[in-house]
Amino acid sequence: MFKINENYLKLPGSYLFSTIGKKVAAYQEKNPDRKIIRLGIGDVTQPLAPAVIEALHNAVDEMGDSATFHGYAPDLGYEFLRKAIAVNDYAQRGCDIQPDEIFVSDGAKCDSGNIQEIFSIDNKIAVCDPVYPVYVDTNVMAGRTGTYDSVKEMWSDVIYMPCTQENGFVPELPEAAPDIIYLCFPNNPTGSTITKSGLQAWVDYANRTGAVIIYDAAYEAYISEKDVPHSIYECEGARTCAIELRSFSKNAGFTGVRLGFTVVPRDLKAGDVPLHDLWARRHGTKYNGAPYIVQRAGEAVYSDAGKTQLKEQVAYYMKNAKIILEGLKKAGYSVSGGVNAPYIWLKTPGSMTSWEFFDHLLFKAGVVGTPGAGFGPSGEGYFRLTAFGSHENTIEAIERIKKLG
Amino acid sequence: MFKINENYLKLPGSYLFSTIGKKVAAYQEKNPDRKIIRLGIGDVTQPLAPAVIEALHNAVDEMGDSATFHGYAPDLGYEFLRKAIAVNDYAQRGCDIQPDEIFVSDGAKCDSGNIQEIFSIDNKIAVCDPVYPVYVDTNVMAGRTGTYDSVKEMWSDVIYMPCTQENGFVPELPEAAPDIIYLCFPNNPTGSTITKSGLQAWVDYANRTGAVIIYDAAYEAYISEKDVPHSIYECEGARTCAIELRSFSKNAGFTGVRLGFTVVPRDLKAGDVPLHDLWARRHGTKYNGAPYIVQRAGEAVYSDAGKTQLKEQVAYYMKNAKIILEGLKKAGYSVSGGVNAPYIWLKTPGSMTSWEFFDHLLFKAGVVGTPGAGFGPSGEGYFRLTAFGSHENTIEAIERIKKLG
Repeated sequence: MFKINENYLKLPGSYLFSTIGKKVAAYQEKNPDRKIIRLGIGDVTQPLAPAVIEALHNAVDEMGDSATFHGYAPDLGYEFLRKAIAVNDYAQRGCDIQPDEIFVSDGAKCDSGNIQEIFSIDNKIAVCDPVYPVYVDTNVMAGRTGTYDSVKEMWSDVIYMPCTQENGFVPELPEAAPDIIYLCFPNNPTGSTITKSGLQAWVDYANRTGAVIIYDAAYEAYISEKDVPHSIYECEGARTCAIELRSFSKNAGFTGVRLGFTVVPRDLKAGDVPLHDLWARRHGTKYNGAPYIVQRAGEAVYSDAGKTQLKEQVAYYMKNAKIILEGLKKAGYSVSGGVNAPYIWLKTPGSMTSWEFFDHLLFKAGVVGTPGAGFGPSGEGYFRLTAFGSHENTIEAIERIKKLG
Repeated sequence: MFKINENYLKLPGSYLFSTIGKKVAAYQEKNPDRKIIRLGIGDVTQPLAPAVIEALHNAVDEMGDSATFHGYAPDLGYEFLRKAIAVNDYAQRGCDIQPDEIFVSDGAKCDSGNIQEIFSIDNKIAVCDPVYPVYVDTNVMAGRTGTYDSVKEMWSDVIYMPCTQENGFVPELPEAAPDIIYLCFPNNPTGSTITKSGLQAWVDYANRTGAVIIYDAAYEAYISEKDVPHSIYECEGARTCAIELRSFSKNAGFTGVRLGFTVVPRDLKAGDVPLHDLWARRHGTKYNGAPYIVQRAGEAVYSDAGKTQLKEQVAYYMKNAKIILEGLKKAGYSVSGGVNAPYIWLKTPGSMTSWEFFDHLLFKAGVVGTPGAGFGPSGEGYFRLTAFGSHENTIEAIERIKKLG
């Protein structure tokens, strides 16, 4: 008689964004004429850049000709893409990362969910609170998080590192020693950042205590200030303690194209065992490569034309961020983020909970955001808006929110 | 101090096809002028069908226009594709499978590796022997297989179901009761098939003993004979005991495009818990959908033009299968498969082991195949050749093998 993985049953509710999707769909069904503006899920709205479109068309043509057809991709990804990444994202920022330390995948969500597999079930994880739910949920599924306290909305075996207005939304080094530390900067959901010296302290801490850092840098393209690191490998010693996750979703609008990568430096070891070998084994056994045409599209992101076009795309979204940030300030909200990140994090007015504010905004203004509580207990009383809408919709959403008074 | 998943260290050697790839690369480097013919890995060589190419171009154009741009795909896959699958692969074969029981993914390798996650670590798996290595290796990584006997090349907690010449390469119902049964028909690697009544016996067995069947039907497009089921849901009672995996890799040449799907009927439950909910939760939490353009390409596979073109493509490969099958017979080999499957399974000559025959074929004929031992202990003394080469290469490979004498 087969038995299921009971850890799945411990998960409270469904995946956050599935829940939001269902709530919005139910509201739209009851109010079919209402124009809903979605600033909730971090999904982009601008079309792919012309350089990317051109690369896709060319690669599709190659797939239609037996002389240039491509079957299974190499395990780690095509060398043309891994080299472009190594040069542009690492060498040019002074980071020592080799092409064969880069594993191309179909996105950072998958990688951030799968990476925990190469670690023992006994490891204790530490997460920022609030946090991207995938880090915690995938560890729940693996049985690494203990029991759930439904009042506190916390897991017994997870180390929560509160990020609130009081500490500028940057976590302090934890007192209890975690084995695996998830960090995400620029941060989802708070939009906060960390300085280079701030991140260096984390790298030093991890090397000192034998912890590994899973560093999610999916939003690095939105960094506008100088002292904010784009990669954890800008810090000394990161090669022995850090795995970095990257995405093409936000810098190049690939949410529906699917491309990302994970960096596992060869110097990162557990005793004699390089984590690189474990991740390579997982990749080779459970994954079959990102599509050839998509990898060619990724390469185009690093072309001169691609870079120019995508800089404009990021600027487009950051103009939205400014509109939201300034509009909400004028309307009397307490807000942060939105300067080095496409996320604006606001305090809910009065004593409203974040889900109450979600309903308030949806029902009264027809605007969808993400309740802070969905990201963890310290997210209660906060709310996330994204800059990924169109200009017109963003302006309209802020006007509607202002009118709420 | 972080610790790794020790189960990974139990895995003997690297993933089979990575090993073969390295061996072939080393030989090619030493013999740069030798034209190597690859009939090893089951990778296709024919270009994508014109209907698929057209769909890809159209979808790429959509992604370049903000009015038709697509971001994150729905969790289960786009409805246009799930409906096309439900109608063509199931309703038209008399199977009761609804679109919302179909989970679109980036391929059957990922799905067949990930599906074990929703089951308890305590479950005992049964596999055909020989078998597609992903089923076993992913259970090893999860810690479900006990200890490895490096002499017998067997895991202590896996039920092996030998498939040899003696039983026509179809396994017998196991005496020890497994919880999870992996079946693949048409079979990889042996190319054997099962009759409808034969498969019905497995469905009845699973329902009687409370086992779940993971049915891999990746090669169903190659079925040419009448009494061979295309789906396990052609059998009565399969909705309460079977999960089916499908791929677009072999019927439509998508090995480098990446598309597949898994069917989890809502009637398949562990007590009150539908496995559908667990798989949906995994999909929603760890996966972000197949690319929009790829899902449109998948839809084109079911168009009238697509069907006609792909029938020709399958016929092209099956002509190769016939060339291999008849050529090897003439050369005195004992062979099977190749009638309802793109794989030909041959007995190695004399007392040669399958890896010895691999080297023999590579060094003497410049032909790459796959050693049967790589698929499990009962694969020793056998060898797999695939029909996925070009006609010219297939003919040349068989000529070279014939000359070996």
